[in-house]
Amino acid sequence: MNTSRLEAFSDGVFAIAITLLVLEIKVPPPDTVLGAELLQLWPSYLAYVVSFLVIGAIWINHHAMFHHIVRVDGTLLLLNVLHLMLIAFLPFPTAVLAEAFHRGTDEPIAAAFYSSILTVIGIFVNAMWRYAAHEYRLIDPHLAAKKVRKLRRQFLFGPIAYAIATVVALVLPWLAVLLFILLNLFYLWPRWGYRSTPSPIDDSTTSSDTPAESLRDRSEGD
Amino acid sequence: MNTSRLEAFSDGVFAIAITLLVLEIKVPPPDTVLGAELLQLWPSYLAYVVSFLVIGAIWINHHAMFHHIVRVDGTLLLLNVLHLMLIAFLPFPTAVLAEAFHRGTDEPIAAAFYSSILTVIGIFVNAMWRYAAHEYRLIDPHLAAKKVRKLRRQFLFGPIAYAIATVVALVLPWLAVLLFILLNLFYLWPRWGYRSTPSPIDDSTTSSDTPAESLRDRSEGD
Amino acid sequence: MNTSRLEAFSDGVFAIAITLLVLEIKVPPPDTVLGAELLQLWPSYLAYVVSFLVIGAIWINHHAMFHHIVRVDGTLLLLNVLHLMLIAFLPFPTAVLAEAFHRGTDEPIAAAFYSSILTVIGIFVNAMWRYAAHEYRLIDPHLAAKKVRKLRRQFLFGPIAYAIATVVALVLPWLAVLLFILLNLFYLWPRWGYRSTPSPIDDSTTSSDTPAESLRDRSEGD
Amino acid sequence: MNTSRLEAFSDGVFAIAITLLVLEIKVPPPDTVLGAELLQLWPSYLAYVVSFLVIGAIWINHHAMFHHIVRVDGTLLLLNVLHLMLIAFLPFPTAVLAEAFHRGTDEPIAAAFYSSILTVIGIFVNAMWRYAAHEYRLIDPHLAAKKVRKLRRQFLFGPIAYAIATVVALVLPWLAVLLFILLNLFYLWPRWGYRSTPSPIDDSTTSSDTPAESLRDRSEGD
Repeated sequence: MNTSRLEAFSDGVFAIAITLLVLEIKVPPPDTVLGAELLQLWPSYLAYVVSFLVIGAIWINHHAMFHHIVRVDGTLLLLNVLHLMLIAFLPFPTAVLAEAFHRGTDEPIAAAFYSSILTVIGIFVNAMWRYAAHEYRLIDPHLAAKKVRKLRRQFLFGPIAYAIATVVALVLPWLAVLLFILLNLFYLWPRWGYRSTPSPIDDSTTSSDTPAESLRDRSEGD
Repeated sequence: MNTSRLEAFSDGVFAIAITLLVLEIKVPPPDTVLGAELLQLWPSYLAYVVSFLVIGAIWINHHAMFHHIVRVDGTLLLLNVLHLMLIAFLPFPTAVLAEAFHRGTDEPIAAAFYSSILTVIGIFVNAMWRYAAHEYRLIDPHLAAKKVRKLRRQFLFGPIAYAIATVVALVLPWLAVLLFILLNLFYLWPRWGYRSTPSPIDDSTTSSDTPAESLRDRSEGD
Repeated sequence: MNTSRLEAFSDGVFAIAITLLVLEIKVPPPDTVLGAELLQLWPSYLAYVVSFLVIGAIWINHHAMFHHIVRVDGTLLLLNVLHLMLIAFLPFPTAVLAEAFHRGTDEPIAAAFYSSILTVIGIFVNAMWRYAAHEYRLIDPHLAAKKVRKLRRQFLFGPIAYAIATVVALVLPWLAVLLFILLNLFYLWPRWGYRSTPSPIDDSTTSSDTPAESLRDRSEGD
Repeated sequence: MNTSRLEAFSDGVFAIAITLLVLEIKVPPPDTVLGAELLQLWPSYLAYVVSFLVIGAIWINHHAMFHHIVRVDGTLLLLNVLHLMLIAFLPFPTAVLAEAFHRGTDEPIAAAFYSSILTVIGIFVNAMWRYAAHEYRLIDPHLAAKKVRKLRRQFLFGPIAYAIATVVALVLPWLAVLLFILLNLFYLWPRWGYRSTPSPIDDSTTSSDTPAESLRDRSEGD
C-alpha cells in the first residue's frame, strides 16, 4: 500500500465525517414559531462551525504530515486507522456539545468530553509522526533533521492545548469553546505576509512555522 | 497541496451533501393511506429537487473556477473550507423549507433563510475568485485579462440574484422557490445552439457567457 | 470537464446512495423479543437487497455507457445530474417499500412507486445514450454503427421492463419485487460460459448482448 | 473495468460504511444527568470500536487480495457487489449489538447475529479469492503457487473463526465480543520485529504469514 491510497481513504473519511455533521441539526418540531426556533438552534450552528473547523484543520494537518511520509508500514497503518476512528466519532461529541448548550445544563461535561476526544486525536497525530520520523523510518530521507524536530514540537502543541482546554472546560465551558475556534483558526489561518518573498523552487525541506505553512510552502513551490 | 487534491476533497463534500438530501424525506407514519401521504410529501420532493439543482450548479461552478486556478495558497484553502462549510450545511435549510411548506406556515422565513445561505455561498465564491485572480495571484497566467473580468462579473450575478430572492421570499415565498429553480437551471442549462460552431482547439481563454459555458468550452475543446 | 471527472463524481453518488440504504433499517424498539423482531424486519432486508442490486446494476451500466463516451458537453452534464438526482432518491422509495410490506397494507402503491422511479431512471439512461450517440456526437468515433444500435436497443429494455413491472405491481406487488430482483441479477449476472473463448485483444467495438457483457469484454480484453 | 476502478468504488463504500457507524450513537435525551448518561452509552462505544476495527481489517484484507488480482470479470464483479452489500449492512448489526448490551437482554442473539454476518462476509472473501486464483484466472501469473495456496489457507481462517464465535456468542456473548476485537487486532496488528530484515526490492510473491503482512511487504518494498 503506497501512501496515496492511504491518504485517499483517509480523505474519504474526513470528507464524510465533515459532511455528516449537519445531520445532527434537527428541524424544529411543529407548533413553534419557525423564526424564533431557528434562532434558538444557535448551539447547533456553533457546534457545527467548531467541528467543521476542527476536522478541516486535522485534514490539512494530515496532508502536511503525509507530505513528508514516503512509505507506510503496518504500525503506521494501525495508528492511522485508530486516528480515523476518533475523527469519525466527532459528530457524536459535537451533538452532545450542541445539546448541552441548548438545554443550558451540563455544558462543562459536554465541553470537556469534546475536548478530551480532541486531546486523544492529538496524541495519535504525535504517535504517527514520532513513529514515522524515528530514525527516518518512513519519511523522506532528504528532510532536514532540524525540520523533523521542528515538526515534532509543532505537533506536540495540539494535544497540550486541548488538554488545557479540557481542564478549562470543566470550569468555564464557554471559554473552552472559544479556545477550540481560535486554535483551529490558528491552524487554518494563512499568514498574510507570507507571500511577500515567494521562492521559485520547492523548498519543502526548509523550516516553517506551522504544518499549514509547510503545506503552503509546497503549493507555492509547485 | 496541488489543486487536484483540493478539488477531490471538495468533490467528496459535494457528492456527500447532495446524496444526504434524501435523508430529510421521512417515510409516512403508519395509520395513514400511503398513496395520499406520498402525494402530501410534495414539499419534500420540491425541496429535494431545488437543493439537488443548487448543489449540482455550485459543483459545476467550482470546477469552472478551478479550471483556471493553477495553485492553492493558505488563504484560498481557508476560503474553500468556509465555502464547503456552507455547502455541507444546505441539507438543513432544505429540510426547513420542506417542513414550512408542508405545515403551510412560516414559508417566508424558511425561504428567506434558505436564500440567505445561498447568498453567503455566492459571496464566498466571489471572494475565492477575486482573491485568486487578483494580479494573477493563483490563476493561469495565460488567461486573457478580458476573460478574468468577465468571470468576475458573472460570479457577481449569483449573490446579487440570491439577495434579491431573499427579499422576495419574505413577501412571496413561492416566487422565491421558483427563482431558485430557474436560476440553477440557468446555470446548468446547456445552450442548445452552442455546438453549431465547434472549435477544434482548447479555447478556454476566450470569453463565454456563463461559468457552465466555460466548462463546456473546455470539454468540447479537449 | 473530461469524462473521468464526471464518472468520479457519479461513482461517489452511487457509492454513497448504496451505503445510505442501511440507515433505513431501524433497530427494534425496546420491550420486544429481539430474535422475533429481527425476523420480522425481513421486508427491510428484502428492500435493502433489491435496492443494492438495483444501484449496483445501474453503476455497472453507467460505466459500460461511459466506456464509449469520450467527451462531455453541457446537455449530457445536465442529463447526468438529473439521472443522479433519481439515483440518490432511491433510499426513500426503498424505505416506503419496506414499510408497506412490514405493515401489510398499501404494498401495490409502494411497489408501483418504486418501479415508476426505476422507469424514469431508465428513461434518462436512454436519453443520455441517444443524445451522446446521435451522429457520434460524444462517443468514440471508432465504435461500430452496429454496436451503437445494439446498445440503443439494450438500454431500451430497462425502462420498458420497469414500466411493465409498475403495472404488475398495482395488481401483484410480490411479483413486481421478484421482477426487480430477477431483472437486476440479469444485469449483474456473468455469463458462465463466456470465458471459454477469450480474445487476447480489446474487442470493445464488437457486438455483445448486454451492457454488463460489454463491460466484461473490456476487462477481459485488457 | 480495470481493478483500480473497482477498488476505488469499494474503498468508497468502506469509507462511508465506517463513517456512518457513529450515526447509531444517539445523544442522551433531556432530563438525564449528562455525565452518567455518557458513561451508560458504553455499549455503543464498544460496538463502534468493534465495527470500526472489523471494517478497517476487511478494507486492508480487500487491498491485500486485489494486490494480486490483475483483471476483473463479471463473476468477480458480482461477488464483489454481494461482498459490499454485507459490508454496507454492518451498521445495522452494530446498532443491534449496542442496543442489546444497553438493555441487558438478548445479548446472545445480538452477538450471534453480528457474528453470522461476519461469517458470511468471510465466505464471500474466500469465494472471491478462490474464483480469481483458480488456474490463475484473474491473478498475477508471476505469483508463486505456494503463495496462492498460503493465501487460500489464510482467507479460510476468517469465516471459520467467526463461525466458532457465532456458536460461542449464543452461550457467552461477552466472550464473542472479545473474540471480535482480538481477531481484528490480529489482522491489523503489525509484527513489531518484522522490519529487522527489510528487503530492498518488492518481494510480494514471497510467502508471508497474513494478508496484512503481505500488504506490508509491498509497501516496504516500494
